[in-house]
Amino acid sequence: MKGRVFSGARPTGKQHIGNYLGAIQNYVKLQEEYECIYCIVDIHSLTTMEDVSNMQGNIHEMIVDWLAAGLDPDKSVLFVQSHVPEVMELHTLLSMVTPLGWLLRVPTFKEKARMQPQNVNYGLVGYPVLMTSDIVLYKADAVPVGEDQLPHLELAREIVRRFKDMFSPVFPEPQARVTSSPLVLGLDGVNKMSKSLDNQVDMAATPEETEKRLKAAYTDPQRRYRSDPGRPEICNIYKLHGFFDPENMADIAERCRSARIGCVECKKMLAQAINTTLQPFREKRADIAANPEYVKEVLDDGARRARIMAGETLGEVKEAMHLL
Amino acid sequence: MKGRVFSGARPTGKQHIGNYLGAIQNYVKLQEEYECIYCIVDIHSLTTMEDVSNMQGNIHEMIVDWLAAGLDPDKSVLFVQSHVPEVMELHTLLSMVTPLGWLLRVPTFKEKARMQPQNVNYGLVGYPVLMTSDIVLYKADAVPVGEDQLPHLELAREIVRRFKDMFSPVFPEPQARVTSSPLVLGLDGVNKMSKSLDNQVDMAATPEETEKRLKAAYTDPQRRYRSDPGRPEICNIYKLHGFFDPENMADIAERCRSARIGCVECKKMLAQAINTTLQPFREKRADIAANPEYVKEVLDDGARRARIMAGETLGEVKEAMHLL
Repeated sequence: MKGRVFSGARPTGKQHIGNYLGAIQNYVKLQEEYECIYCIVDIHSLTTMEDVSNMQGNIHEMIVDWLAAGLDPDKSVLFVQSHVPEVMELHTLLSMVTPLGWLLRVPTFKEKARMQPQNVNYGLVGYPVLMTSDIVLYKADAVPVGEDQLPHLELAREIVRRFKDMFSPVFPEPQARVTSSPLVLGLDGVNKMSKSLDNQVDMAATPEETEKRLKAAYTDPQRRYRSDPGRPEICNIYKLHGFFDPENMADIAERCRSARIGCVECKKMLAQAINTTLQPFREKRADIAANPEYVKEVLDDGARRARIMAGETLGEVKEAMHLL
Repeated sequence: MKGRVFSGARPTGKQHIGNYLGAIQNYVKLQEEYECIYCIVDIHSLTTMEDVSNMQGNIHEMIVDWLAAGLDPDKSVLFVQSHVPEVMELHTLLSMVTPLGWLLRVPTFKEKARMQPQNVNYGLVGYPVLMTSDIVLYKADAVPVGEDQLPHLELAREIVRRFKDMFSPVFPEPQARVTSSPLVLGLDGVNKMSKSLDNQVDMAATPEETEKRLKAAYTDPQRRYRSDPGRPEICNIYKLHGFFDPENMADIAERCRSARIGCVECKKMLAQAINTTLQPFREKRADIAANPEYVKEVLDDGARRARIMAGETLGEVKEAMHLL
């Protein structure tokens, strides 16, 4: 029997090539090996009170990108977190077995509390409890995580063990499936690619937009004139070539170092490579975007399937906690 | 239009005369003036992890007592908290707008954290958020509270205001309806009557049990011999006469002070008064207890009616929070 993977991602709207290289490609691959449950975690967006006014639009753009990129509703369960209200029930119930001290010691909580001390809500503290609920509601065996998420997953396992000690072994302990996704920097060449920093190239951008976005990208600051030799090893544009154009890396490096190619031309080549790689995706995306009924059906069906699993687990939880 | 009252009580099993004099009589009376929503708050019992193994039995005994005492399912909505899962959804959603600092400053939280430091769970901190959810899910206008509960209700009002500032005015601000319920001491003459201290007289006790329980009750410690004069003003048995036998107070006081009546006889008179007062209740209770199907129907119907209100409110909340 296939193992079951759960992963959630916040509804950030149109996905960029950093999301693609970092998460989506991995999601697509995991479908062959696991029964996958992929969730757009809208409730998590509320924990940090980021701008949620366009939540529905962001959810829509994100699921369209996912579908076009190869997430397959016949293979995986694709749904929106809040469409399965059982996760909020489980969050409330697991809050009863989770020591406050565990949560206050989580590194990401301490970081967020330091960054926005005026905005430390009860729900922010409970973020790992909600994440645990996401995972164990579907009795997932494995969770693809980056190194930075390991403390959260360890906490999920501790909550599972505590529930077992206090009540009964309803949940399996989810295992981390650490995936070393590449760090994709944004067009500023400094920060991780991120919509909120406006340093991204969207997967769904047109070829012209892609080229235009890249034109303004940061390269080697020492290369002030076309005739200056460049340093590909410190250039983020060069690094991006590695993802989309790997067979030309040696050639580009050589031509950059010898100033036989300028940044403008190099960026055009990268735009070309990105556009070629993403062309099938973009065509498929246009088809899907033209069919909002289909998108709604996918999410409705995903929520329906998720709720069946969720209802079974929650029944066991309530019985264990003497609520039934 | 009638206002709407919400009140919740933990499932403590068979109710004692302290519950009767302190809460149940008031519940019955409020039915004439308000649309009342009375809830057995089983999830709250999980916040302090008191013994919950007999939760279902305790819920049953409590609702049978309520019904026999005059809570009327044709007038009021009577149900069990966890049968309306929407309250856990709302708890999760309101956690996103409730500053952690507000919760850590609540006096009862500080007291509980001091009393059982090894057992401070995330859910214990969130107790006032769950209580707020209970109240506002039904858009209750008024909440009967004792003085000690005022800080919780003020917090509920602050959460309502914060939700309004951040999203929209979905909830009315619930008003406190302070009821000065009498302090009923237990048979030890020192502590509040409470099942956990085993110092109670159950409403549903038989006349013989009532007499037997009272026999061991604490009276005036200076009255060591039958011939010693007593001090009714410091005697809890005398105080209990006041609730069940008020017209004889002057007479009893006089006979106690002059040692014309002994404690044994005085307790017998009290047992008699309690038994007479509760006889109609006890007869009705026996009928209801003999019909568990009816009890189940009452709770099912109450949950059904509560869920209709809850679903409407939660829809507005989700829309306000951009989850719909």
